[in-house]
Amino acid sequence: MTYKKIDERDLAFLRSVCGEDKVFFGEEEINDDFSHDELGGVHQYPEVLVEVIETSQVSQIMKYAFNNNIPVTPRGQGTGLVGASVAIYGGIMINMSKMNRILELDEDNLTLTVEPGVLLMEISKFVEEHDLFYPPDPGEKSATIAGNINTNAGGMRAVKYGVTRDYVRGLEVVLPNGDILQLGGKIVKNSSGYSIKDLIVGSEGTLGIVTKAILKLLPLPKKTISLLIPFPNLEMAIETVPIIIKAKIIPTAIEYIVKDVILVSEEFLGKKFPDHSADAYLLLTFDGNSTEEIERLYDKVARICLDQEALDVLISNTQERQDSIWKARGAFLEAIKASTTEMDECDVVVPRNKIAEFVKFGDRLQTECHIRIRGFGHAGDGNLHMYILRDELNQAEWEEKLEEVFRHLYQRAKELGGKVSGEHGIGFAKKLYLQESDGEVNTLLMQSIKRAFDPMNILNPGKIC
Amino acid sequence: MTYKKIDERDLAFLRSVCGEDKVFFGEEEINDDFSHDELGGVHQYPEVLVEVIETSQVSQIMKYAFNNNIPVTPRGQGTGLVGASVAIYGGIMINMSKMNRILELDEDNLTLTVEPGVLLMEISKFVEEHDLFYPPDPGEKSATIAGNINTNAGGMRAVKYGVTRDYVRGLEVVLPNGDILQLGGKIVKNSSGYSIKDLIVGSEGTLGIVTKAILKLLPLPKKTISLLIPFPNLEMAIETVPIIIKAKIIPTAIEYIVKDVILVSEEFLGKKFPDHSADAYLLLTFDGNSTEEIERLYDKVARICLDQEALDVLISNTQERQDSIWKARGAFLEAIKASTTEMDECDVVVPRNKIAEFVKFGDRLQTECHIRIRGFGHAGDGNLHMYILRDELNQAEWEEKLEEVFRHLYQRAKELGGKVSGEHGIGFAKKLYLQESDGEVNTLLMQSIKRAFDPMNILNPGKIC
Repeated sequence: MTYKKIDERDLAFLRSVCGEDKVFFGEEEINDDFSHDELGGVHQYPEVLVEVIETSQVSQIMKYAFNNNIPVTPRGQGTGLVGASVAIYGGIMINMSKMNRILELDEDNLTLTVEPGVLLMEISKFVEEHDLFYPPDPGEKSATIAGNINTNAGGMRAVKYGVTRDYVRGLEVVLPNGDILQLGGKIVKNSSGYSIKDLIVGSEGTLGIVTKAILKLLPLPKKTISLLIPFPNLEMAIETVPIIIKAKIIPTAIEYIVKDVILVSEEFLGKKFPDHSADAYLLLTFDGNSTEEIERLYDKVARICLDQEALDVLISNTQERQDSIWKARGAFLEAIKASTTEMDECDVVVPRNKIAEFVKFGDRLQTECHIRIRGFGHAGDGNLHMYILRDELNQAEWEEKLEEVFRHLYQRAKELGGKVSGEHGIGFAKKLYLQESDGEVNTLLMQSIKRAFDPMNILNPGKIC
Repeated sequence: MTYKKIDERDLAFLRSVCGEDKVFFGEEEINDDFSHDELGGVHQYPEVLVEVIETSQVSQIMKYAFNNNIPVTPRGQGTGLVGASVAIYGGIMINMSKMNRILELDEDNLTLTVEPGVLLMEISKFVEEHDLFYPPDPGEKSATIAGNINTNAGGMRAVKYGVTRDYVRGLEVVLPNGDILQLGGKIVKNSSGYSIKDLIVGSEGTLGIVTKAILKLLPLPKKTISLLIPFPNLEMAIETVPIIIKAKIIPTAIEYIVKDVILVSEEFLGKKFPDHSADAYLLLTFDGNSTEEIERLYDKVARICLDQEALDVLISNTQERQDSIWKARGAFLEAIKASTTEMDECDVVVPRNKIAEFVKFGDRLQTECHIRIRGFGHAGDGNLHMYILRDELNQAEWEEKLEEVFRHLYQRAKELGGKVSGEHGIGFAKKLYLQESDGEVNTLLMQSIKRAFDPMNILNPGKIC
């Protein structure tokens, strides 16, 4: 793909739209952060970085870029892990993170209207102050809501509450040609034509730029309790999960944790984890409106786990104890990252009764491929985060090994009825694996859809398909 | 649009694929039912009707139709209300209703895999026998699951449980060119490329033909209780709904009912409704796993309603009493239909705090336009079903009035932040109103999406956009 390079005329236009001090040109002016995302495997500076504060600016920029064949990459907090927000063809990067106002809480309709740059943690805090609840709970709380929408982020509570898609009622989107689209609204049902809103969710900024979102809220559950359940080994822990589900109990979250990861997390946080007795743990959360209601649920689960030879059941019913566990859980990614020189991630999702099999496969791969793999995951929803660690490998060895390990992992996931990404997306880094997993018919159709939205291929090109 | 007409060669091909006795040609052989849907305003026979029992047949037919420029209309039980399953350009109609096997209940993953022609009532019955729950609950229980998926049907329980989209985990779809696509799976999360699955949901058979679906199930709530709450008038009843929501209580269902409709339903069913004391009612359902849990909720709601001057609160805690109410509720559509010569429907959805305003607007319209409008609706989710009754109008008057009333209703819905259809879809009958409501940008984009899937425009042409 060849695009027009940014010149003085383009800069003058961008300055006229965004203001003199909101346009940054070249590597001297652009902060290094904007050349990569959280994982860092994909590196490229945009030619020009601009900061916007309103939809009309985004629309004007897209219209200009469309008419002048300039690639545009929308950018939030850059917390992604697959290079989706890296400007791999240069061009214009639009920093959306200053469009960060909470616009309206509507308690009659239980909706929150926000700009795209509001952070996930700001949303949780704001709604909880009003006794309301935004359920999606990805580990990375400093991501923007538009980032969450663009990857259809899931997080810990997906077992009971579903994923970001389930909480997006309406969107305002700027299309690649600059047109502004209003999708959905404060309405609960909608069967009025194709659900373009649902196509935008998870499209990683390749079909349109989200400039406003109407989110669905729930009443805040009055009570939350976590159980930390040590098991003799990971296999026994994970194999208990389908038994819980089969018993017709849906906890809010079911995470699995292994000792290795606890140890790096303790070192990273400088804080002890509440238990060291076992090689593997299930971490479960229950929420509800009364203690009895929750107790009934977790009693049943505790009994199931003990029947499956769990070593103990540790109940965290104070905020403090829960915080100490969940804080450690929240630091896993950073801790693993800090324990090696570089890493890349496999974010597969498999049916939840196939997790044990997949984790065992990952273990075997470590030995066979002579590389460290560390992981944790959402045992309740089948979404695993496996980190392949570079340690002391040189660049060539690393690239070769990484590709080999990825191919094995994604191939196995496919055999088990799984998919390449549960919540982190495809972006640039996982494009080939998606094509291999989904096959040609699906890839061609995705390309046709992309062309329908973006015939010039200027919006976040080179991503997904 | 000009399409190739069906000839002997086409019939020979269809017979070779489907079997001699599964191909019906011309108006003599094709049952009249297949020339219209439930509402009957749109009439057209397909040239040929075929019955299929497996995906490969659908794929072969589509490939043939694609290569020969023949329009194809997929058809379930024909319970739609907007002409989406009427073959307005003739061609081939594929009757999917014999692909009606329940393929697999997976209790580890809480999924049910079904063929497209399984009826909604068959699904409910089957899963409830296994102590499981498929929450979507549209009034028309004899619709096929693929029909429900294609309209993103909502139903009564959408307030608490969401709509069909929220329960579709995976789909097998035959594309207009005959290619077979597997979308999603038994997985809980997915962020692997564009969510084509979510685009198919609600696309009314215009983008692909659903040949298999993997549905998400929940544990069956152990207890259900309904409250019938009479109010002095409809306005007072409906205005209570946002107050309930604001109190952070989410019932399973909140329906509103007016006396007029109760009377026609009694006449139609030959059965008395449990109460006649009031002009308007709210009908609420609560479900949960224990009586106390539900009581806590409905106590609070009962108090709110009495504060809002409800006349009484009638509790139906036996199956029998609940059946008598919900049976009447389920017969409203048929009863209204039987009370007039012909009718058409407005299925708008508005934010739930705008329902009262919209219902009042409908009332004024009856007087202003001199036409009877009867309705009921899902007060909890803002989705109203308003039926415009022809009574004694002649054809020309009827068409003119209908268009006038529709324009007013959809215009008002738009002003209130609503949409043309909450759950019945656009099909053929509501196409122009969707365009007027959504505007040109949206319409053009939908047309581009349609072209991306169906460049020859052979799959269910003339619908939606």
